Amino acid sequence: DIAEILEEVLEKLDVESTIIVFRMLPKDVAVEVFSYLPSEDQVEIIHGITDREISYIIKELDFDDKIDVLEELPANLVDKILEKTPKEERKLINTFLNYPENSAGSLMTPDYISLQDNMTVGEALAYIKKEGMDSETVYTCYVKEKGRKLEGIVSLRSLVINDEDVKISELMGTDYVYVNVYDDQEEVSEAFKKYGFLAIPVVDKEHRLVGIITVDDILDVIEEETTEDIERMAGVMDDSDTEYLDMSVLRHVRNRLPWLFILMCSYIITGGIIGSFEATLSQVICLVAYMPMLMGTGGNSGSQSATLIIRSLALDDIDFSDIGRVIWKEFRVSLIIGIVLSTLNFIRICWLEPGGAGTGPGPGGWGYGPMIATTVCGSMLLIVIAAKIIGSVLPMVAKRIGIDPALMATPMISSLTDMVSVVTYMLLATALVL
Amino acid sequence: DIAEILEEVLEKLDVESTIIVFRMLPKDVAVEVFSYLPSEDQVEIIHGITDREISYIIKELDFDDKIDVLEELPANLVDKILEKTPKEERKLINTFLNYPENSAGSLMTPDYISLQDNMTVGEALAYIKKEGMDSETVYTCYVKEKGRKLEGIVSLRSLVINDEDVKISELMGTDYVYVNVYDDQEEVSEAFKKYGFLAIPVVDKEHRLVGIITVDDILDVIEEETTEDIERMAGVMDDSDTEYLDMSVLRHVRNRLPWLFILMCSYIITGGIIGSFEATLSQVICLVAYMPMLMGTGGNSGSQSATLIIRSLALDDIDFSDIGRVIWKEFRVSLIIGIVLSTLNFIRICWLEPGGAGTGPGPGGWGYGPMIATTVCGSMLLIVIAAKIIGSVLPMVAKRIGIDPALMATPMISSLTDMVSVVTYMLLATALVL
Ligand SMILES: [Mg+2]
Ligand SMILES: [Mg+2]
Ligand SMILES: [Mg+2]
Ligand SMILES: [Mg+2]
Ligand SMILES: [Mg+2]
Ligand SMILES: [Mg+2]
Ligand SMILES: [Mg+2]
Ligand SMILES: [Mg+2]
Ligand SMILES: [Mg+2]
Ligand SMILES: [Mg+2]
Ligand SMILES: [Mg+2]
Ligand SMILES: [Mg+2]
Ligand SMILES: [Mg+2]
Repeated sequence: DIAEILEEVLEKLDVESTIIVFRMLPKDVAVEVFSYLPSEDQVEIIHGITDREISYIIKELDFDDKIDVLEELPANLVDKILEKTPKEERKLINTFLNYPENSAGSLMTPDYISLQDNMTVGEALAYIKKEGMDSETVYTCYVKEKGRKLEGIVSLRSLVINDEDVKISELMGTDYVYVNVYDDQEEVSEAFKKYGFLAIPVVDKEHRLVGIITVDDILDVIEEETTEDIERMAGVMDDSDTEYLDMSVLRHVRNRLPWLFILMCSYIITGGIIGSFEATLSQVICLVAYMPMLMGTGGNSGSQSATLIIRSLALDDIDFSDIGRVIWKEFRVSLIIGIVLSTLNFIRICWLEPGGAGTGPGPGGWGYGPMIATTVCGSMLLIVIAAKIIGSVLPMVAKRIGIDPALMATPMISSLTDMVSVVTYMLLATALVL
Repeated sequence: DIAEILEEVLEKLDVESTIIVFRMLPKDVAVEVFSYLPSEDQVEIIHGITDREISYIIKELDFDDKIDVLEELPANLVDKILEKTPKEERKLINTFLNYPENSAGSLMTPDYISLQDNMTVGEALAYIKKEGMDSETVYTCYVKEKGRKLEGIVSLRSLVINDEDVKISELMGTDYVYVNVYDDQEEVSEAFKKYGFLAIPVVDKEHRLVGIITVDDILDVIEEETTEDIERMAGVMDDSDTEYLDMSVLRHVRNRLPWLFILMCSYIITGGIIGSFEATLSQVICLVAYMPMLMGTGGNSGSQSATLIIRSLALDDIDFSDIGRVIWKEFRVSLIIGIVLSTLNFIRICWLEPGGAGTGPGPGGWGYGPMIATTVCGSMLLIVIAAKIIGSVLPMVAKRIGIDPALMATPMISSLTDMVSVVTYMLLATALVL
């Protein structure tokens, strides 16, 4: 419809033009467009319009969208808006604003259809006809006891399919799935994925129904959580939902510098290890030429394993109790991969570079060839195995001790495997070549 | 309910026990449990039960789940099952089986509520009461012309809210969003994310309504597509949906070996470059000790940029036309990061390792210190900038020329940046230190 088209147009404009166009819209269209916009654009618009206009928009928004907008605004502006809100709603808004970010409470809306178990289908439908316009969804209805305790759930489908005089108590399901108000949004989205719900009830400690979460908001949660995982897996720490181009240069630096710095420091150790093998290196300088290949292949092998394990942990395909099976699988996989890559390398080195890296015989001298090939290929095998075991074990251990496994991905793993690669290679070289 | 609990139990059992327990279930519970199981478990069960039991299950499944199961079965078994199916349904099943994998057609179901625009709300509700049990959803209803062309959409909410005698033509929306039967499932899931639909209509070339896709199946699509992206970003090629532990060792090897091999080959070039600088290296051997740090930091910097860009491309936050802004942003980010990391390094090297890497003065000899520090830190700055530009440009170019940008992630980028790092470092070293 018109609001969707306008939203696409507004997204392409810069801040000033967005606000100018937005203020020209009729009030009701403006509210609808506003609800479609990403949250940074909403905040920008809020800062560009009058308090009167803000109040109007906030008043007209769906309750859950209203909470989302208020969460992004500075406290004094929120207070000003709340002053003009009726007392009952103000209390409710304050409760909702206090739920922790990323909790079920922060996602839910109190606008649901609530029925009694002694109603008939006819009475329930009449009630929905009256209240359905203001409810976030009418397709799942909630049956509450007098103490606001959640008793059962009934779908609009079963209301429409059954006769007018059937009692709600006969239709409602009482072994429904629910979440707690302080549950993490990731657990909530797991429930949606597993059961294909359109909405899920949120209850408090006393099992009172405090709100519902609808599937449209879960799609956003999944996108957010996946982006967070993917970014962390690349060593980017970003706690905002700001789009790439909207983020300032300094913010980008702040998100990326910490891990780059930490990992750079880990290479001081790797450098120290190399330094302590200077005697070996200076005697057979062509060993250096194979170092990037060994470190690179180790890093890539470890990343593959770490990524597969991190994703499997995120999808609940595996948990810590599978660690034995994971190690056994990775050992066999890495053994085969290591043997294949080593063999191919052995042939290449003996055949094409009998005197070491580069073209033809180098300072390594003829005669070193087979020993160098053995060193490189033996290291390759050991490095691939070590990298795959490290890459699979580390994320599982991290999850076990309460660290986000996504942090154990490529940058972390490849820095570790670089260290392991250098030690393995240097020790083998010292033993075999000299 | 009971089926959900049973499904959890079955998931924990091995194949044989699953089949034994499954065959003990009452027929109707068996079908429900079956529909909840992941597709590999379904296939395992199918192979463990009699053809008669298979036919019963297939007959009772929802149409879209039926298609999903049939797709996984061998052709001769499918033929055997179809023989016992009524002719009309057999034709429909064959049509649906022919839609390409990952197309809208492969996700849709023909079980929707279809209304006429001259019906009243009362007539429509009576129709839904009669047909609603067999429909995938009743919450969005579809209004068709005589030629099966899609005319409009009406929600059950608006039917329930309006009076009995209102005409459907007055309530239906005619500027609805739809997808084409051959659209890719990623485009379909974009539409769901953007608008928060519960279902979307699928039309053919003549704009005839051929089916609908519901949001519960889109949650699976999003999970699948994200897993594919994440795996590709780590150089794992996997075209199945098999879980980590269920996949054979040889299959794991087949998924991971190709990229490891290709990238290993790229290191032959890197090794050759180092070989050609042997003169420089053998004169100042301690240069080698800083190589892992430079390559590692280059790889990590490039991975960060590549990941952010790949994710932004996947979420449609940026497209190829933004390439100028992306490069300009990455240049400034990398300049700051490069200067910070270089400065910290310069201090460390001059202060702690005046004679080169390791502890105290090494064979590099006193006096080389500041020149080595300058070489390392100059290289660091150039490498970080180059890595971030390569990491951001490559995925955008890949998308532009029709390659999946996810393939341009860590392994690819870090192999490239390793090459760039070595060249930069060796050239600077030869110029400055010697
Ligand atoms: Mg809403
Ligand atoms: Mg919220
Ligand atoms: Mg909502
Ligand atoms: Mg989280
Ligand atoms: Mg997470
Ligand atoms: Mg974020
Ligand atoms: Mg279904
Ligand atoms: Mg299908
Ligand atoms: Mg379905
Ligand atoms: Mg795809
Ligand atoms: Mg993809
Ligand atoms: Mg897969
Ligand atoms: Mg690396």
